Amino acid sequence: MTPTAPQLDACFCPPGRPFPARRAPEDREEVLSAYRRIRALTLALVRPLAIEDYVVQACDEASPPKWHLGHTTWFFETFLLGPLTGKAPYQPAYVHLFNSYYESVGPYFPRTRRGTLSRPTVAEVLAWREAVDAEVLALAATLGHEAWEQAVAVMQWGLQHEQQHQELLLMDILANFAENPLRPAYCAPSPADVQPVDPIAWLPIPPGLHEIGYAGPEFCFDNEAPRHRVWIEPAAIAHRPVTNAEFLAFIEDGGYHNPRWWLSDGWAWVQREGRSHPRYWVPTEGGWAEMTLAGLEPLHPQRPVVHVSYFEADAYARWCGRRLPTEAEWEVAARCHPVTWGATLDDGTYHPTPPRGPQDHLLQAMGGVWEWTATPYGPYPGYRPPAGALGEYNSKFMNGQYVLRGGAAVTPAEHLRPTYRNFFHPHESWPFTGVRLAMDLDKGRAD
Amino acid sequence: MTPTAPQLDACFCPPGRPFPARRAPEDREEVLSAYRRIRALTLALVRPLAIEDYVVQACDEASPPKWHLGHTTWFFETFLLGPLTGKAPYQPAYVHLFNSYYESVGPYFPRTRRGTLSRPTVAEVLAWREAVDAEVLALAATLGHEAWEQAVAVMQWGLQHEQQHQELLLMDILANFAENPLRPAYCAPSPADVQPVDPIAWLPIPPGLHEIGYAGPEFCFDNEAPRHRVWIEPAAIAHRPVTNAEFLAFIEDGGYHNPRWWLSDGWAWVQREGRSHPRYWVPTEGGWAEMTLAGLEPLHPQRPVVHVSYFEADAYARWCGRRLPTEAEWEVAARCHPVTWGATLDDGTYHPTPPRGPQDHLLQAMGGVWEWTATPYGPYPGYRPPAGALGEYNSKFMNGQYVLRGGAAVTPAEHLRPTYRNFFHPHESWPFTGVRLAMDLDKGRAD
Amino acid sequence: MTPTAPQLDACFCPPGRPFPARRAPEDREEVLSAYRRIRALTLALVRPLAIEDYVVQACDEASPPKWHLGHTTWFFETFLLGPLTGKAPYQPAYVHLFNSYYESVGPYFPRTRRGTLSRPTVAEVLAWREAVDAEVLALAATLGHEAWEQAVAVMQWGLQHEQQHQELLLMDILANFAENPLRPAYCAPSPADVQPVDPIAWLPIPPGLHEIGYAGPEFCFDNEAPRHRVWIEPAAIAHRPVTNAEFLAFIEDGGYHNPRWWLSDGWAWVQREGRSHPRYWVPTEGGWAEMTLAGLEPLHPQRPVVHVSYFEADAYARWCGRRLPTEAEWEVAARCHPVTWGATLDDGTYHPTPPRGPQDHLLQAMGGVWEWTATPYGPYPGYRPPAGALGEYNSKFMNGQYVLRGGAAVTPAEHLRPTYRNFFHPHESWPFTGVRLAMDLDKGRAD
Amino acid sequence: MTPTAPQLDACFCPPGRPFPARRAPEDREEVLSAYRRIRALTLALVRPLAIEDYVVQACDEASPPKWHLGHTTWFFETFLLGPLTGKAPYQPAYVHLFNSYYESVGPYFPRTRRGTLSRPTVAEVLAWREAVDAEVLALAATLGHEAWEQAVAVMQWGLQHEQQHQELLLMDILANFAENPLRPAYCAPSPADVQPVDPIAWLPIPPGLHEIGYAGPEFCFDNEAPRHRVWIEPAAIAHRPVTNAEFLAFIEDGGYHNPRWWLSDGWAWVQREGRSHPRYWVPTEGGWAEMTLAGLEPLHPQRPVVHVSYFEADAYARWCGRRLPTEAEWEVAARCHPVTWGATLDDGTYHPTPPRGPQDHLLQAMGGVWEWTATPYGPYPGYRPPAGALGEYNSKFMNGQYVLRGGAAVTPAEHLRPTYRNFFHPHESWPFTGVRLAMDLDKGRAD
Repeated sequence: MTPTAPQLDACFCPPGRPFPARRAPEDREEVLSAYRRIRALTLALVRPLAIEDYVVQACDEASPPKWHLGHTTWFFETFLLGPLTGKAPYQPAYVHLFNSYYESVGPYFPRTRRGTLSRPTVAEVLAWREAVDAEVLALAATLGHEAWEQAVAVMQWGLQHEQQHQELLLMDILANFAENPLRPAYCAPSPADVQPVDPIAWLPIPPGLHEIGYAGPEFCFDNEAPRHRVWIEPAAIAHRPVTNAEFLAFIEDGGYHNPRWWLSDGWAWVQREGRSHPRYWVPTEGGWAEMTLAGLEPLHPQRPVVHVSYFEADAYARWCGRRLPTEAEWEVAARCHPVTWGATLDDGTYHPTPPRGPQDHLLQAMGGVWEWTATPYGPYPGYRPPAGALGEYNSKFMNGQYVLRGGAAVTPAEHLRPTYRNFFHPHESWPFTGVRLAMDLDKGRAD
Repeated sequence: MTPTAPQLDACFCPPGRPFPARRAPEDREEVLSAYRRIRALTLALVRPLAIEDYVVQACDEASPPKWHLGHTTWFFETFLLGPLTGKAPYQPAYVHLFNSYYESVGPYFPRTRRGTLSRPTVAEVLAWREAVDAEVLALAATLGHEAWEQAVAVMQWGLQHEQQHQELLLMDILANFAENPLRPAYCAPSPADVQPVDPIAWLPIPPGLHEIGYAGPEFCFDNEAPRHRVWIEPAAIAHRPVTNAEFLAFIEDGGYHNPRWWLSDGWAWVQREGRSHPRYWVPTEGGWAEMTLAGLEPLHPQRPVVHVSYFEADAYARWCGRRLPTEAEWEVAARCHPVTWGATLDDGTYHPTPPRGPQDHLLQAMGGVWEWTATPYGPYPGYRPPAGALGEYNSKFMNGQYVLRGGAAVTPAEHLRPTYRNFFHPHESWPFTGVRLAMDLDKGRAD
Repeated sequence: MTPTAPQLDACFCPPGRPFPARRAPEDREEVLSAYRRIRALTLALVRPLAIEDYVVQACDEASPPKWHLGHTTWFFETFLLGPLTGKAPYQPAYVHLFNSYYESVGPYFPRTRRGTLSRPTVAEVLAWREAVDAEVLALAATLGHEAWEQAVAVMQWGLQHEQQHQELLLMDILANFAENPLRPAYCAPSPADVQPVDPIAWLPIPPGLHEIGYAGPEFCFDNEAPRHRVWIEPAAIAHRPVTNAEFLAFIEDGGYHNPRWWLSDGWAWVQREGRSHPRYWVPTEGGWAEMTLAGLEPLHPQRPVVHVSYFEADAYARWCGRRLPTEAEWEVAARCHPVTWGATLDDGTYHPTPPRGPQDHLLQAMGGVWEWTATPYGPYPGYRPPAGALGEYNSKFMNGQYVLRGGAAVTPAEHLRPTYRNFFHPHESWPFTGVRLAMDLDKGRAD
Repeated sequence: MTPTAPQLDACFCPPGRPFPARRAPEDREEVLSAYRRIRALTLALVRPLAIEDYVVQACDEASPPKWHLGHTTWFFETFLLGPLTGKAPYQPAYVHLFNSYYESVGPYFPRTRRGTLSRPTVAEVLAWREAVDAEVLALAATLGHEAWEQAVAVMQWGLQHEQQHQELLLMDILANFAENPLRPAYCAPSPADVQPVDPIAWLPIPPGLHEIGYAGPEFCFDNEAPRHRVWIEPAAIAHRPVTNAEFLAFIEDGGYHNPRWWLSDGWAWVQREGRSHPRYWVPTEGGWAEMTLAGLEPLHPQRPVVHVSYFEADAYARWCGRRLPTEAEWEVAARCHPVTWGATLDDGTYHPTPPRGPQDHLLQAMGGVWEWTATPYGPYPGYRPPAGALGEYNSKFMNGQYVLRGGAAVTPAEHLRPTYRNFFHPHESWPFTGVRLAMDLDKGRAD
């Protein structure tokens, strides 16, 4: 019965699997160059917008694009320039307006009312942004070695934070446009892709004792550490995410009208919100359509289903007789099987693409859609939040949310790593969230 | 005891009191000229705004300026061009987006979500506006006599409607700016005016049988008719509105903390909303300030108190041992005493000014602040709503609101007349609402 | 055009119309006898209840029967015994628990939570009741003349108040039982009555100057005074209330689905609450049924429609091309036409009966159903609230409600008079509220 | 670094630790005797109540005692008698009224409205209860062997369910009484106990691979299985729960006013609900008091703090520099250290008592207070819900809640076992919930 304790992390991790190289920035110029590049990308992302688009907030979860521009600047002013220079903020009122949720920094303007502010104007926010960028770059060039060591940690954190907001920008633009009956488009549609995808193949997850969590020399968020051991029971994971066509079968079987498949809270959510399909699906006379960043498109059956809540993902999995993977299973699987990438922000499709590739690969485990795991978001054993205000970054949200893994078509590729832990509430579906199934294996067979 | 029945409307209405001349437009050119002038004024009013300012909606009652621009255009397209030309609307989706509340026209976009729409852009709304204006003017020039007769009635209604939205524009800009911690200004402040105003003098309202309501040949709204008789008991009315200094005494006496002065619903509102002063008053280190369209200004004691709800007006009056006038009393008083004008939109102060003038005049009965009356908004005896969709304009709101009389510093002067009935819910204070007191007279003495 | 000013109140009030004789209590024994009788009736009304029935509160408007028993006792203890004897209350906590809404008496337990209190038990409340009754009667027997004069006013008020709560008891028992799927019955059903009622006949209301309001020597509530003059335009009033059969035609014509007939607030209420029929109507396989104090009964077509909100009454009237009467019209009509009585609490049917009688009588103007008027509840000209806490009895509710006239099948007959002003919010339908129609008459014809 | 894989479950479990003997019922009579005994205990628990106390529901979480009596009877009727006899229910309406949340059984009366039902009366519910008990016992005596095998599983489940409702009864009576300003008492107070308790001692939790979950032959709930392996990092657990005196220090240090200690959702909860102390603490002139089933008592400093939410438990732990244990740590600790019992329902104190005993024992790990763990409630690896309606018993609630361990002063002792998983939402504090602290140990030291 008791298995031989396996070697920790001994499973085969094939060389050449395309995880992005993430080395510590070796010299100052490399960091400053990243700063310029990442800050510039944020501006490039808002370029297609009309001024009006920067201002609105069509749902409580989303923020106006203008706010993202300001908040990411606030981050560098508050956590980098302030401590290093002791200078007063550019505009005292901005400290309040662009603080997201840091209680230790002071009171913050209510999140759900960000869309009520016409001022500062977009031009004023951009001027602030420019001023802070100039100051950051000038300061960084002149810091002594020790001060630089301190600064670089905050800069890296700030750039990772900026990348998170690049994704949020696109999520929020879609949320705003989707609520608008004119159904505006942010980008051009991708070409249709009608070739079927392969049926789901099941890749075994090696049972036994594994290590998960980040342990390398480069940047990771506090919530990815410490690396620690977990015991995995015999299970298998789907080689690709669930597609629209597959999810449609659930709908057509009455899935949204049968409490049997739903968690109690999920069923209450379905009833209260009157849900009968994923958030951005639209029934039209010509069949199902889907609101995307390219506007309203016919539903592409081969694309991964996206913008489903945990409740929907979990209900779908039960209806299939399957389940969602735990985050440990997901991470172990992603280390032990060759991984392919789905779309990322760098590709500019801003929507997941049909998952194709070898049946023994974990298709689109990185990019494509964020994959709900069955694991409630919490601290790893031995976790300690960072000191100071950045301690609020992740740790105070460790309640009531689920971990998602892998990254999405709107995430910068270099932001992702297999230990990355994203997290959302189970009812949320404005992120690019999708479903990868898992299943228990018979113990006898797996051992 | 029983007075001799007075002659109906026999009280003295001094010649030369400055009610605006409102004659029926004698020829077509006069109407078209009014059309051009009034439509242009709307555009002039939004000129000081940044694009961002057109989009936001900081409270449920207010609408984004962009929406007002669209809705007033929608009015002419829907009620004038559509019936006369049979042409399809400029943009079918606009029919839905810019319908305010006309059930008979079709479903309308929810009022409280108008601020979530970045599209159509301001430029697109202005292009639509321009197109409709061109079509209206071209069409009007070519209509036969009979069609013109029909058109002119809708045009007049539409222009009165446009004027109402000119006032709403300014109310809503203030509401939006007041919620913004940056406290933006729409216009330049008026010079300070520190000279005291006279104490309130009491003008008798002639008791007996009077007629109120509109009966002339010119435009009035349906709710001002029919002219009808009312019996007035002996009473007197204040010769000027209540000032900030007077209202402050109520606050300093603990008025907002003593249920004794409040209607039950008013007290519940004070508690629920945590009110302790009028909506736009701001306690600062340097004393009371007031948010106005000129930004945050020190509270001017001599100006009329403005932006008070019915609940506040009524509580203040009880605290004084007075009461609010009925609308019949107000109208009779305004016919029987010389009236002076307070500020109107035409003056460009966008705020009421200290009420000064002869003590036997009804100071600022027209313009200045809308004056709450004690009369719930309802139909006059024999009232009939207009046929068709315009029947929804006024009549379906005849519940749960109070009548206000006189006009405000943001109302176009030519829009006002002494029979004009404005109406708001008793908790609303985003309009420019103020207080004029009244009191019963001893029957013996008055008869 | 101008009518000859009619004699005030000169219309013919036929002798023998059955208004209850209400004389001032001539001697102390008569008052004490009324006290015993009325207090005993309250106890008789709760006798059919199980202990459990005394405790629950199935909707926010209703109160538990136990609370009514305690509150009416609290009234005599607080306003009569306390001031006269200076003694401490029977149980200090009861002061808080059984105060309904008197801010000047002190904080009161929240209305909507009265059904959460199992203690004091019914037996404890009854013991308190008995103790207060004994003390009141003992005290009254020994008071000197002056003190008695003062006491008798409060006693009369307290007995009128007790009668109001007798009606409320029955309204609230019905509200509680109606929410219970077991549909309990409080009393036995009345025999079916299938004979048709006469079509509505229209009785003219004499136009001109009238007086309304109470002016006699006996008890009336403060809100019925002062008697004052009103001008009445030509109109007619229905000789009987609207029946279930008539109201059903409105439903079958899609009345609840057509915004055309509804006030804006009424339509919002219909949508929000999902209303499609009067509150206690129940669609069953065998057709419409109605929940009554006798349990679930088949809908009797000839009975007056009851438990309709103002919104429903007003929409029904519009659909008919009629309107609701004003309260002045109602009172004048009730003085100028012979009146018959509908059921009152004294009859023990606890439900209105089919309105039958001469076509030139105002059938069931007293009793039967409370009749919504088009008049918002407000003060009469010259109204002054009583001094002290009883000033809160009526006056602070003079906002947002409509006046109802006439009395209902659950009102004690001796409590009613033609000047009586009941009032409820326009959405409320748990009282026994019904509809009597009115219509304008052509001025030419009527004058 | 890699520890020697420890023997699974090899830690020393001292003989004689007082876990209750729970053997499978060997014969039918033993089961029927348990049925009689447990059903009778429920009735004994409600004996101190007045009829009124059975009816009310003072907060949404609680249910009226009458409902518990009915629901536990419904359970046997629905899951035992119905399937075995095919007979119609005693009263069809009860199926709806007393179904708690089983979607597969049919629609159920809304939970938050259970306190609005006066009928069925208590006597009617007891009559039903008696009828079902008679039928169950008669039937059980006559079943053939196979049918009995099937029946006994449901009977055992039903009796465990009945025991859960015995605890709920007491929780709900306290919740109802605590909302009542009269502060009624259900039982007599325990004698004061002022002797100090020992400071917290820290017991090591053996790191390595362990098994948790139930695996024995007797009854356990589905959520306690399957037994499975978990890896435990070096940690220690407090030898006793946190006391009132200790929790008071957190309050006095401003703990409820400092966001630093709180989860984001917890801080929002504190703000929204205005919390500044545990649910049943009452500030009085004489210092802190606590509402208990014995009425309002002075706060006993040595008693375990009870009725704290997860948010409060977690904030307290952070403020101490400690944390809550995971459920795996808790279960392993409870197997590896001698355990003492705190109060259980059998003791009749209905409140936890000061935790005293040897410093190397886990004091009151069983009984006393339910101990919040840091583990979100979810399925164990390989978990499968039971077939049929009982599949809804536990599994659909596996979201948004935290696991609690150990049992409380209101839990029947024989209901408890060290693998028992209770679960509540993080804001809930109407159960008897308390705090046991844990801490990480230095890896080097522990390995």
